[in-house]
Amino acid sequence: MKIITSVKEMNAFADEAHALGKKIGLVPTMGYLHDGHLSLIKKSVSENDVTVVSVFVNPTQFAPNEDFKTYPRDLNRDAALAESVGADAVFHPEPEEMYPDGYHTYISVEKLTEVLCGVSRPTHFRGVTTVVAKLFNIARADRAYFGQKDAQQLAVVRRMVADLNMNIEIVGCPIVRESDGLALSSRNVFLSPDERSQALVLYKSLCTAKGLLEGGERSAARIRAEIERVIKTAPLADIDYIEIVRYDDLTAVETIDCKVLIALAVRFGKTRLIDNIIF
Amino acid sequence: MKIITSVKEMNAFADEAHALGKKIGLVPTMGYLHDGHLSLIKKSVSENDVTVVSVFVNPTQFAPNEDFKTYPRDLNRDAALAESVGADAVFHPEPEEMYPDGYHTYISVEKLTEVLCGVSRPTHFRGVTTVVAKLFNIARADRAYFGQKDAQQLAVVRRMVADLNMNIEIVGCPIVRESDGLALSSRNVFLSPDERSQALVLYKSLCTAKGLLEGGERSAARIRAEIERVIKTAPLADIDYIEIVRYDDLTAVETIDCKVLIALAVRFGKTRLIDNIIF
Repeated sequence: MKIITSVKEMNAFADEAHALGKKIGLVPTMGYLHDGHLSLIKKSVSENDVTVVSVFVNPTQFAPNEDFKTYPRDLNRDAALAESVGADAVFHPEPEEMYPDGYHTYISVEKLTEVLCGVSRPTHFRGVTTVVAKLFNIARADRAYFGQKDAQQLAVVRRMVADLNMNIEIVGCPIVRESDGLALSSRNVFLSPDERSQALVLYKSLCTAKGLLEGGERSAARIRAEIERVIKTAPLADIDYIEIVRYDDLTAVETIDCKVLIALAVRFGKTRLIDNIIF
Repeated sequence: MKIITSVKEMNAFADEAHALGKKIGLVPTMGYLHDGHLSLIKKSVSENDVTVVSVFVNPTQFAPNEDFKTYPRDLNRDAALAESVGADAVFHPEPEEMYPDGYHTYISVEKLTEVLCGVSRPTHFRGVTTVVAKLFNIARADRAYFGQKDAQQLAVVRRMVADLNMNIEIVGCPIVRESDGLALSSRNVFLSPDERSQALVLYKSLCTAKGLLEGGERSAARIRAEIERVIKTAPLADIDYIEIVRYDDLTAVETIDCKVLIALAVRFGKTRLIDNIIF
């Protein structure tokens, strides 16, 4: 497996693959890979001739008060894990390679980025869409793989690709959870034992919501209230948001009569966790 | 020559060309083609296997108070002209095909778009970069051709392509002028005979500036003053801006010691004309 750090070399690697008629799958990550990422890489390996995993902690998607500096990094571990599931290359550029002096271009998706995580992270998705478009172009990807855990990110990326007529297929993959239900996240390593154990309320509250929906409840307000009640049983939980929105455009829904995303963000100490289900 | 109106059909046309190993040149225009456009099409025909001319008056690059509705349109004439110089396809979508319901994505280039035409047209370049990126993707273009008359547009598009690592070559082509020096523009048809004759001061003032530069003058302020003096000999001229900036990043220059763009925008009645020289 190759480790590539320059845009030029990544272009050349991709062009060579395309010249041989090969399809390229890209798995964009910020590294510190867990089984969620590995499920995306495996999916790409099974669907493409060549799989590129990008490992780049993207500064433009962090606000100044966020955890860019402390975000966990371990390239050697990431490379070994990516190789173990069949990746052909890891693209690991320095920030200066992605944003050289004089860099001035940003892609914004309006509306969809102004709700859910966009409320407390107003500049986040602009950084995500910009870097993702760059990575698509640099790796000349035919398909790209995103986890459903970042459901809003996936919706925003799909919107960008459709709006800008990008020639790439976006593949969304299911959330991978620990055996006790906690959604995998590179940020889980920051949780203290107490926080880790209380964080189980996130999935528990979503399962409660699912139970209500399956029992016929259709009031978004009542389901939201029940989720809130379950989360508040954890004293360390500090709720950022609990939202029930249309799956397609992330607009609020009152009576659940379509495909919905139930999404939440909750802080435990300094660590902000997100989780969701689709119904 | 084909006239294509849907994104899907344009994609298929382009994919078929690429499958045969052909290179695609794109000439993005707003139609009402003149010899300036035709010079771009000829250049593309000489450098590519397939040339696509897009004819699309792009609503997102006009502000509400601008001339979107009155911008001249004549598709049959444009198609005949494009065909006469060897174009293989005209792509002519309706606005709804380019911006369907739920459209929300925009590409912005900062800094370079905040000067020159960006001052009086603050939303213009966001519309330009967005539609140009869409057209690049829709036509799967290998090269795209832009006139140097819209010098700022060319600089902004080059910046976007570099920043977003787009896999396309941008080709800039010289300004084409009437025999008396007026730069060709689709908007020239709006000029009254008096305005048309007085509009010659634009190129005349730029030639005066060039003469001063060739004579050794290096003060941007003195050259600017001389341009202003010449333009003001035309009583119908209403100056929007006269600027002398670095060619690369469009930042202001005081002493001319690098490649510079001398650019101006002047209104004659309701018609806003731009012109420039590079030194």
